[in-house]
Amino acid sequence: MAPLKLHGVPFSTCTARVRACLEEKNVEYEICPVDLGTGAHKRPDFISKNPFGQIPVLEDGDITLFESRAINNYIAHKHKDQGTDLLQLGNLEDFAEVLVGCEVESQQFNPTMGPIFFNTFIAPLRGWAPDQKAIDENVVKVGTVLDVYEKRLSSSKYLAGDCYTLADLNHLPYIAYIMKTPHADLINSRPHVKAWWEAVSSRPASVKVSEGLTLGSSH
Amino acid sequence: MAPLKLHGVPFSTCTARVRACLEEKNVEYEICPVDLGTGAHKRPDFISKNPFGQIPVLEDGDITLFESRAINNYIAHKHKDQGTDLLQLGNLEDFAEVLVGCEVESQQFNPTMGPIFFNTFIAPLRGWAPDQKAIDENVVKVGTVLDVYEKRLSSSKYLAGDCYTLADLNHLPYIAYIMKTPHADLINSRPHVKAWWEAVSSRPASVKVSEGLTLGSSH
Repeated sequence: MAPLKLHGVPFSTCTARVRACLEEKNVEYEICPVDLGTGAHKRPDFISKNPFGQIPVLEDGDITLFESRAINNYIAHKHKDQGTDLLQLGNLEDFAEVLVGCEVESQQFNPTMGPIFFNTFIAPLRGWAPDQKAIDENVVKVGTVLDVYEKRLSSSKYLAGDCYTLADLNHLPYIAYIMKTPHADLINSRPHVKAWWEAVSSRPASVKVSEGLTLGSSH
Repeated sequence: MAPLKLHGVPFSTCTARVRACLEEKNVEYEICPVDLGTGAHKRPDFISKNPFGQIPVLEDGDITLFESRAINNYIAHKHKDQGTDLLQLGNLEDFAEVLVGCEVESQQFNPTMGPIFFNTFIAPLRGWAPDQKAIDENVVKVGTVLDVYEKRLSSSKYLAGDCYTLADLNHLPYIAYIMKTPHADLINSRPHVKAWWEAVSSRPASVKVSEGLTLGSSH
């Protein structure tokens, strides 16, 4: 069977999110690099795969998907009996926890961590001055989200219970990047969050994918 | 069997999103009103259900969930063989379309429509001046999202294919509110989006839930 094609680049957070899922599920894939520098993701052949012109895109035979969280949900459902059990579909209560944890990442964590990442790693790359006000405001906001995580993680090893799931995995790329900056204190200052991150980031799949997160590494 | 308890208020967009799903799935539920005016959602008994202090919360026996999209996913999975087939789990390609459509709502539509809704309906309620710049910027952004929808809907009746799914349903509350304002032109100026909205909004579940969306109705 031909491996899945993942259109993206290893240093991209959203590409890394999908790679982490594919690695946890032991699904064979090949990375098809997209030359962001020349705007390859805005050209018609790419737009025909993702009309929003964003990476990553996954091609699984005739099925084409975009949006990293949708792709991960698809992979975790399709290969539910293979690799790490990322959805806990076998138990309704556990599955409910995974759904809530994933949505919290998407609606609470991502919108606050996103601007910190953007202004710390992407803006300098484009020669733009970082928006310090946006960084400061969102450090406070993500702190309140992590306070909820800290309490949650005082009673379970992972965000959706005692097993590693998609609710944890989807956090990987942003935190891996943030840990290279002074904002690492957001994680390190919260003991249960810190222990959780150590468990998450030391997984073989996480280590492999994190090696590709090279933005800002020359600074 | 005791009906599900939905903690929320009918005029809330996120409560309405969940109600629309419960109605489509013919799942019995009771609304447990939350007195937002007195800050009931920030008190310990509510925080024990949702640590972020937001409505809605769903209680299904011993299972408690929050985040409207997670709740809808849960309901649609648990009752997959009942009512409207909102996930298309029977066909992997169709299910992939639903996952992508839901995530596009969450990551592309919601972050741009949210500020328009907030500044049009919530800010005046709190006596705040609407942030016109935020409205104007996001009208442009949501327009580009709706341009993608317009093209998509020229080849299928609904966002994830020819069946009504969660990918459509999750859009209901924001658009229902926006249609009461001059921003309705965002929908009405795009023929396929307009036809889609007419199909979505005329469903009995949509009509019932939309009747509760009364914010701003005294203006």
